[in-house]
Amino acid sequence: MSILVVGSIGFDTVTTPHGKVEDALGGSATFFSAAASFFAPVKIVAVVGEDFAPSTLDFLRRAGADTEGVSVDKGQTFRWTGSYGAEMGDATTHATLLNVFQEFRPEIPHAYRGEPFVFLANIDPELQLRVLDQVEKPELVVCDTMDFWISGKRDALVELLKHVDVLVINETEAKTLAGESNPIRAAKAILPMGPSRVVVKLGEYGVMLIGEDKIYRLPAFPVEEVCDPTGAGDSFAGGFVGKLAQTRDLSFEGMHRALLAGAVCASFTVESFSMDRLKGIDRNAIDERCRDLEHIAGWTWSALAV
Amino acid sequence: MSILVVGSIGFDTVTTPHGKVEDALGGSATFFSAAASFFAPVKIVAVVGEDFAPSTLDFLRRAGADTEGVSVDKGQTFRWTGSYGAEMGDATTHATLLNVFQEFRPEIPHAYRGEPFVFLANIDPELQLRVLDQVEKPELVVCDTMDFWISGKRDALVELLKHVDVLVINETEAKTLAGESNPIRAAKAILPMGPSRVVVKLGEYGVMLIGEDKIYRLPAFPVEEVCDPTGAGDSFAGGFVGKLAQTRDLSFEGMHRALLAGAVCASFTVESFSMDRLKGIDRNAIDERCRDLEHIAGWTWSALAV
Repeated sequence: MSILVVGSIGFDTVTTPHGKVEDALGGSATFFSAAASFFAPVKIVAVVGEDFAPSTLDFLRRAGADTEGVSVDKGQTFRWTGSYGAEMGDATTHATLLNVFQEFRPEIPHAYRGEPFVFLANIDPELQLRVLDQVEKPELVVCDTMDFWISGKRDALVELLKHVDVLVINETEAKTLAGESNPIRAAKAILPMGPSRVVVKLGEYGVMLIGEDKIYRLPAFPVEEVCDPTGAGDSFAGGFVGKLAQTRDLSFEGMHRALLAGAVCASFTVESFSMDRLKGIDRNAIDERCRDLEHIAGWTWSALAV
Repeated sequence: MSILVVGSIGFDTVTTPHGKVEDALGGSATFFSAAASFFAPVKIVAVVGEDFAPSTLDFLRRAGADTEGVSVDKGQTFRWTGSYGAEMGDATTHATLLNVFQEFRPEIPHAYRGEPFVFLANIDPELQLRVLDQVEKPELVVCDTMDFWISGKRDALVELLKHVDVLVINETEAKTLAGESNPIRAAKAILPMGPSRVVVKLGEYGVMLIGEDKIYRLPAFPVEEVCDPTGAGDSFAGGFVGKLAQTRDLSFEGMHRALLAGAVCASFTVESFSMDRLKGIDRNAIDERCRDLEHIAGWTWSALAV
């Protein structure tokens, strides 16, 4: 099963306690695809500027991604500058240059419109809705969002959620969207808005999956040296949706299991700047770390103990 | 197997977004014992003042706890006043009246000195050392501590850790003790100080167990309405050590499994002020929630799926 992803491609200038990178490859569609491509073919719709060397996405094409939907517009590519403090919590944004992204109106190529899995990366919910208007009935629609849209374009976001199967959202955003101070109550309050499942990202503490009156938790893979958290959420979503596209097991338990792949992809992402670590590993490395995380979470030995 | 616990008994005046209690039963030895007593007999060494009604501890005695080691000194019982904000993070302390606790020099009754399990609740590490001087070689020594001692009595704490098997410590304290910003590196840096296992409490995100080159994680039981976090850490330790005393399985995997009981006791504690919720439940309620948490953590279905 292949996946349509619509999101951003950009260049990040990031400072962390471990150093600094300038104009490193970033963007929600890029991090998502770098992770998802380990599991399933990805078709990317995004926009870049004239300054974007086509070879930049060669690593994704080699992994089976289709980049025909990445259009090149007149102007510069989206750029973000941010930094992280010692605790590696939320980024501080120093500059956001939308550039060609400002006028991005996603046009889904006809060849992509029947994709069974759709991931709407974090962009304006009006554009996310526009994507759903263009695709045929997908098997699974997963979307991400952020505080900026929760407060700035709430109506469009609420409309979007009616058409989404799984919302992937971080803890603070879930609380803001639901107006709740507790993450479980927040996720439960989001369910009636549309998604049948809500995945709440808890950062270094892992993820929570809520729906069908059930809750599942998975810890993050323990990373001792976090180099740069940028893209962790998008590569989590990439591993998660990629795994679902591979297994096609959309049961609640199948989703719980797919969180493993998401958590592991995120753990590789944060170990380097940009997508450097993800680029340097193969599927074996992912699978091995998934087995480690199963063990850490107690899945392995508890299974053996039964 | 029974457990010797040495710690504080006091009265807490606590304000949270859910209300306020005045002079409610609190203290590290009390919360620990309320939880541990579900699993094993507890022998308590602590001090109270003349204002402490002996019947206050009846509920522990009914649960099989031995309170002969609770001495009554001239003066008032230890009192703490604190509050929690909407996010229910760390407490803000408004007043600490040590009262009789100021002169507390734990004397372990002879009948208690051969106890196989010892829990040193969070008190001055010099006093914790004094306890260990008085007991015969226990099978398992578990201890807790806090920032106050980590910075104020570091030498005594470092000496104590040489004689401890398991250190139970919260994330911030582990980082401070180890001088590390990452919780995994922090726990790994603590191991050479003495304990063969370190349990890092991650608050609402659960716990991490580190040792023997292994890491295990367990999520917290998801609580939708946290009424008062006071005592969560001590009742976590009570459930954990109590379960170990019941199973006597001190293997790394046995400890991972025992974390369940700790997490569940903590979850009941935070659902009310003081020990009210723990007092109102029986072992069946604990076991049922343990099974729920196994399911939430993925232990159950992954076992079934194998």
